[in-house]
Amino acid sequence: MSALSEVAPEVTEPSAFAHWMSATQAATEVALDAHLPAAGQLPARLHAAMRYAVLDGGKRVRPLLVHAAAALFDADAACVERAARAASAVEMIHAYSLVHDDMPCMDDDALRRGKPTVHVAYDEATALLVGDALQSHAFMLLAGMTIEPVRAVAMVTVLAQASGSAGMCGGQAIDLDSVGVALSLPQLEQMHRLKTGALLRASVLLGAWCATTPSAAELGALDAYAQAIGLAFQVIDDVLDATADSATLGKTAGKDAADNKPTYVSILGLAPSRALAEKLRSDAHQAVLPFGDKARHLRDLADLIVQRKA
Amino acid sequence: MSALSEVAPEVTEPSAFAHWMSATQAATEVALDAHLPAAGQLPARLHAAMRYAVLDGGKRVRPLLVHAAAALFDADAACVERAARAASAVEMIHAYSLVHDDMPCMDDDALRRGKPTVHVAYDEATALLVGDALQSHAFMLLAGMTIEPVRAVAMVTVLAQASGSAGMCGGQAIDLDSVGVALSLPQLEQMHRLKTGALLRASVLLGAWCATTPSAAELGALDAYAQAIGLAFQVIDDVLDATADSATLGKTAGKDAADNKPTYVSILGLAPSRALAEKLRSDAHQAVLPFGDKARHLRDLADLIVQRKA
Repeated sequence: MSALSEVAPEVTEPSAFAHWMSATQAATEVALDAHLPAAGQLPARLHAAMRYAVLDGGKRVRPLLVHAAAALFDADAACVERAARAASAVEMIHAYSLVHDDMPCMDDDALRRGKPTVHVAYDEATALLVGDALQSHAFMLLAGMTIEPVRAVAMVTVLAQASGSAGMCGGQAIDLDSVGVALSLPQLEQMHRLKTGALLRASVLLGAWCATTPSAAELGALDAYAQAIGLAFQVIDDVLDATADSATLGKTAGKDAADNKPTYVSILGLAPSRALAEKLRSDAHQAVLPFGDKARHLRDLADLIVQRKA
Repeated sequence: MSALSEVAPEVTEPSAFAHWMSATQAATEVALDAHLPAAGQLPARLHAAMRYAVLDGGKRVRPLLVHAAAALFDADAACVERAARAASAVEMIHAYSLVHDDMPCMDDDALRRGKPTVHVAYDEATALLVGDALQSHAFMLLAGMTIEPVRAVAMVTVLAQASGSAGMCGGQAIDLDSVGVALSLPQLEQMHRLKTGALLRASVLLGAWCATTPSAAELGALDAYAQAIGLAFQVIDDVLDATADSATLGKTAGKDAADNKPTYVSILGLAPSRALAEKLRSDAHQAVLPFGDKARHLRDLADLIVQRKA
């Protein structure tokens, strides 16, 4: 744990972070509600299903990362508004991926965030369209941002790369191909770097772009932070899938083992997986050291990702 | 047919248009090949399936519209290159929609452009991801265009609006809800305006944005043209579905009647549907009159859309 000892002892009031987090989550819900098509707008059933897929659920980790990264650069009110818009966009991409992943031809999951999945609550065809339309909507939100166009273009590029075949969809494809296959640790890492890591990284970068035109050094630091938390997120996901129950998770637990999917726990074992997550947490702290106290939300989020119970 | 008589008698050498069309189709194939992820690039199976879905098929109507609209504004070589990129983006959106529409939970079609559909040639989960990744890729292409950022942002907005719940996906949702329902003509029009018309309109607008910052008057003319050909396209689709055979169409004929879906033919009858298409063709000619001879490709494409046999 030498890396941890190099980190300046950072004492954030637990209540200060908890307060920021719940305020930001509440603001995210308001922003998502405002940025989604209205419930009554035609086609009404599709829009209702889009809202069902996105609203009222989830820990909003990606929006929290967007806002925490924007806060590195003294975000003013206009910047916070831009961050809320970018956060809505990235959360819509995340939500669409969950809707599609839950479909019978993918993970065939009936429960998500404690509610019936979209194809169960509606139907499969609607679930397919909900995901497709949420993706378009995310890019429309970014392109419609009140900001210099060159920064809007940068944000569209960041989100599109993170979502596509070199990002989330690519990771998902590797995941499909790896069921029942003995992956090496580097292969498992690569899969998760794309499947989960890419969108977490995009969240951090979008937050920065909302606030500034980040320098190469800043982008490098944020990249290192994002890589560490991205991997930590997945390691803990695997730990929770192996140890928690469905009610706590709000989704079906033990799926990976049942599906014979490779996980950190199945390759490394439980205790080494937890130790790896701890190491990654300290790497994340280390990466944002140059930002000093302004990185406190990012540090707290790294802690949250590793210490979460669901 | 008073509208037609107002159109200046435009004599384009049939061979000149045929030459432009096949040259543009060939250039589109080259551009798509270059703008898709390489076949060997990881994840290789996903990328192979994306290429299978997009390459080597289709009439490339949307790319033809992009190039024809760019040609209204004296497109130079750099503009043609931008148009090829925008055309690739819009064709990827179109291809993704076909992949998802063909899936068992939607139209359950086994044949597309004379080839097995993606979920048949690969599998359903891969087909789902192919569509998702193609959509991201389309927006990445537009955002990566060498052009003033404000125009790239405009193009992302145009394509995202045309693709999402207020465009193609929305039309698809209305289509789903209308199986076995007696739609009025205005309702049928609204469905198709979203389902097919929105992306054809986006193609025309993207072409214009590749070449210039279009004026309100120019946008209005292009909008009127796009509305007419969009509707004509669907009317003729319905006529062909009712009259042509699967081998000619390269997809399963008679599906709409079998699925009890409302069509122009089922509501208006065959001859009035053909007359409507002819009227729309003349509206399209009328709309681009202000562009004079530079609109010849757009006029020829309107003729092609109405006169096509597949």
